[in-house]
Amino acid sequence: MAQTRILPPAENAYEYPLLIKRLLLSGPRYNPDQEIVYSNRSKYTYTDLVERIHRLANALTDAGVKPGDTVAVMDWDTPRYLECFFAIPMIGAILHTVNIRLSPDQIVYTMNHAEDDVVLVHDDFLPIIEAVKDEIKTVKTWIQLTDSDAAQQAPVEAVGEYEDLLARANDKFDFPDFDENSVATTFYTTGTTGNPKGVYFSHRQLVLHTLAMTGTVASFDEMPLMRSSSVYMPVTPMFHVHAWGVPYAATMMGIKQVYPGRYEPELLVDLLKEHKVTFSHCVPTIMQMMMATESIKTADLSNWHVLIGGSALTKGLCDAGAKLGIKLYTAYGMSETCPLLCASHLKPEDLELPLEQQTAIRVKTGIATPMVELEIVDPEGNPVPHDGEAKGEIVARAPWLTQGYFKEPEKGEQLWEGGWLHTGDVASMEPDNTITIKDRIKDVIKTGGEWLSSLDLENLISQHSAVAGAAVVGVPDEKWGERPHALVTLKPGEQASAEDIQNHLKQFVESGEINKWAIPEHIDFVEDIPKTSVGKINKKLIRDQLQ
Amino acid sequence: MAQTRILPPAENAYEYPLLIKRLLLSGPRYNPDQEIVYSNRSKYTYTDLVERIHRLANALTDAGVKPGDTVAVMDWDTPRYLECFFAIPMIGAILHTVNIRLSPDQIVYTMNHAEDDVVLVHDDFLPIIEAVKDEIKTVKTWIQLTDSDAAQQAPVEAVGEYEDLLARANDKFDFPDFDENSVATTFYTTGTTGNPKGVYFSHRQLVLHTLAMTGTVASFDEMPLMRSSSVYMPVTPMFHVHAWGVPYAATMMGIKQVYPGRYEPELLVDLLKEHKVTFSHCVPTIMQMMMATESIKTADLSNWHVLIGGSALTKGLCDAGAKLGIKLYTAYGMSETCPLLCASHLKPEDLELPLEQQTAIRVKTGIATPMVELEIVDPEGNPVPHDGEAKGEIVARAPWLTQGYFKEPEKGEQLWEGGWLHTGDVASMEPDNTITIKDRIKDVIKTGGEWLSSLDLENLISQHSAVAGAAVVGVPDEKWGERPHALVTLKPGEQASAEDIQNHLKQFVESGEINKWAIPEHIDFVEDIPKTSVGKINKKLIRDQLQ
Repeated sequence: MAQTRILPPAENAYEYPLLIKRLLLSGPRYNPDQEIVYSNRSKYTYTDLVERIHRLANALTDAGVKPGDTVAVMDWDTPRYLECFFAIPMIGAILHTVNIRLSPDQIVYTMNHAEDDVVLVHDDFLPIIEAVKDEIKTVKTWIQLTDSDAAQQAPVEAVGEYEDLLARANDKFDFPDFDENSVATTFYTTGTTGNPKGVYFSHRQLVLHTLAMTGTVASFDEMPLMRSSSVYMPVTPMFHVHAWGVPYAATMMGIKQVYPGRYEPELLVDLLKEHKVTFSHCVPTIMQMMMATESIKTADLSNWHVLIGGSALTKGLCDAGAKLGIKLYTAYGMSETCPLLCASHLKPEDLELPLEQQTAIRVKTGIATPMVELEIVDPEGNPVPHDGEAKGEIVARAPWLTQGYFKEPEKGEQLWEGGWLHTGDVASMEPDNTITIKDRIKDVIKTGGEWLSSLDLENLISQHSAVAGAAVVGVPDEKWGERPHALVTLKPGEQASAEDIQNHLKQFVESGEINKWAIPEHIDFVEDIPKTSVGKINKKLIRDQLQ
Repeated sequence: MAQTRILPPAENAYEYPLLIKRLLLSGPRYNPDQEIVYSNRSKYTYTDLVERIHRLANALTDAGVKPGDTVAVMDWDTPRYLECFFAIPMIGAILHTVNIRLSPDQIVYTMNHAEDDVVLVHDDFLPIIEAVKDEIKTVKTWIQLTDSDAAQQAPVEAVGEYEDLLARANDKFDFPDFDENSVATTFYTTGTTGNPKGVYFSHRQLVLHTLAMTGTVASFDEMPLMRSSSVYMPVTPMFHVHAWGVPYAATMMGIKQVYPGRYEPELLVDLLKEHKVTFSHCVPTIMQMMMATESIKTADLSNWHVLIGGSALTKGLCDAGAKLGIKLYTAYGMSETCPLLCASHLKPEDLELPLEQQTAIRVKTGIATPMVELEIVDPEGNPVPHDGEAKGEIVARAPWLTQGYFKEPEKGEQLWEGGWLHTGDVASMEPDNTITIKDRIKDVIKTGGEWLSSLDLENLISQHSAVAGAAVVGVPDEKWGERPHALVTLKPGEQASAEDIQNHLKQFVESGEINKWAIPEHIDFVEDIPKTSVGKINKKLIRDQLQ
């Protein structure tokens, strides 16, 4: 380590730990009367938010919560959840945002693994608790959340209902200072195999993510997403990587926030219209559902800017959005990365381009955001050329990446192999630093020493007029290591042979989009392509079946 | 300290120190071909900037610079200086930005006190070095900077000229990791008494200041100051609190930067026009000088946004700026605070107001920026009411405040009395959290247990039609502690008596602007009001003379 000069602070000097309580300083100061809206139910001001956070901290403390405890939340996207984002870490406890879309078995696994001490649970999820209550090991205290006049009968004994507890609690809490490396939040990420894995983020990490995100979205030329006049509505769940961390940033900047509760497409569109929402983030599926509503046809969405993540923003969705006036951008990250790593970056001159050329930029994975180190590397960890062709795994360093998986040191070591966080995504990088994701590394086909994107092949096969869907996986091959194997479903009444598909692919060899060796020898026509519970192609199952 | 949970990182996990080298990641990535302009002399791209920073690091290392060394720079505002902002701290050394406006005696004091090892000095400052060279104690190495074809003959032996050294140096440097609390920069702040005092900032502090500043300026609704299409030109010197830290933020965001060299008003206006500058910062005096040029009359300045600091932005200057289309904002901070603490905050609805009402908001000190804790306190350190009336000293906590004065621990303890940085500024705070500075604490008049602003009184006296200027100081008084004493200069040919001035002030008692006891019993008419070398009223001298 270089022998730099480090000076001790003056005797009285205050060293300033990066704590979540400090994100709450500026928003209420900028705009004390700014609104925080709960769907079509209620609203309150930033001044109220601060008071409620203080009351919640007292209510939790009164219920026995101590620093270091883990407090789980099972709720829809509500201002209550925003209050938990702040109050729970601010008393030194850990916020566990429970993924309510997991199976009850997986939910109880995560609650036990995280060692939850307290659970705040909405009426709607009491049936889950009912089903698994005998397996819950560490929870000592339950708090009920309700949107009705009175909380429902619970299968566990609760200390009270959230609003009742807040009403009874003192409205001043003296939030302590502590080490900025204290764990603030945790949640679980699921793969196709094995148990969910717990990622965790410290106060320091969340503060830095918030600050960098604000700067990043400030650089969007078209309309910076985070300024006084912005109106924010999350459309990715708050349990999913803290709604991508945007609620922290929006609160820091004091902008209007609209929490939709449940994701009902008609309701979401109504809220967009009523509150003139300018900034959201969501996965492609929800965007498609909103676009399919009747009411969106009468909405003025020319000022609605949406970060798309979770799955790739396709050209089709981006163009459909543009027709409605919606500005879509790609954002890239994962549960392990807090999540922001990368986002679309349109330069001023790009905004002068025809819409279809803008789409070509918006659908790329984008350019890494400030303070993020990002590289694409070969299996030995060496950077591959930034020529838009060579593929490598995206590896990252940033101040806000999970430092491991909770209580699974070996998996943490794998994640951090060689001192870089391995995303498991394969991408190419253009000379202008723009990244495009090509595949998941476990799905990429390693053939003849080259990486072949299964996603690219699927897209090209799907362009055949008879094809309804396609899945491509690598199968072991003595000579080439692996060779691509395609499963194809046909549209009703259509016919095609393997040779037809191969001939169709040859045009892309001629146009230079793929190499000759990318054309699969093996093409099977099937009735259905195996999917996972969340609707993704289950390539692991396909590979197992082909073996 | 609360017993929070701190988890050790996975064995391979990379802990991410906040180092200045990381501010350099994103700008060149966003805009490799973006321009950095040196006045009307030359320009280069962000790609060139990165290469030159690597070359400078090698050139310095070749010249013997080691981590922990102090490297001083005496230059105008140039891209060279920007390179030093990065390369010097990035190798683990400390950048000393020498205040070239100090007297040669003070300059040599700061160089000896900072223990400068290396000095980079521009031709124009060689006469200073010539005058004091025998008193310089620690400097081992000199590097010359020139804007001519060849460097001038130097009074000290230099290892070479900057451009020559860069041309000879390797273009790749492996910048090390080290503790983020390492000192990155130092410079000296001067008061009316005593020697200059050295403040210092760590890598962590500068990174956090940069991130928070980017978010702050993102919240400016009228036009966020830092987005891809922005063009930045500093008009406060780079030696003065790193040009308020904006070059770091601009570089992180990859925006076009224009460095003007010397501050010649006609040249500055020409650069504004040629490069369509959108964002600057300066002190009122320079703004007045630019406004007085002939060429500004033909400039379209409707997209020029300027933060005003150093002295108060007056209503007159703000209105004059508005007439030219310039958007002026107050920014508040000091050398000890890196500097950003506070800035004008116009809400969307404020921008709908008539210009004169906007001015009333723009000239206030503003609202504290994100991550800053700010309070106004009485002499016992207790907060005074936020009613727009009560006055208190501004005290602050933030992640980027100097932790003391270099080698002067007692002064550092005073600065940080009670764990808050004492700014020495007296202000009131309105219920909407807007701060207005009223006085320096050493100039405020403590009478009958109340604080009376000398600045307020001076402003009111100056509104008398016969008055050219006024200075008010507190003089000891047995009954009241202190009483105000006014010195007044009259306009040529005008006459007024003490009673005239007192009667003039009575209208402000009636309108409620001041209390009856604020009217000075003692009013002297003088030829000249004593001023300091930088043109401020020398109240210390006035108090000494009155005793």
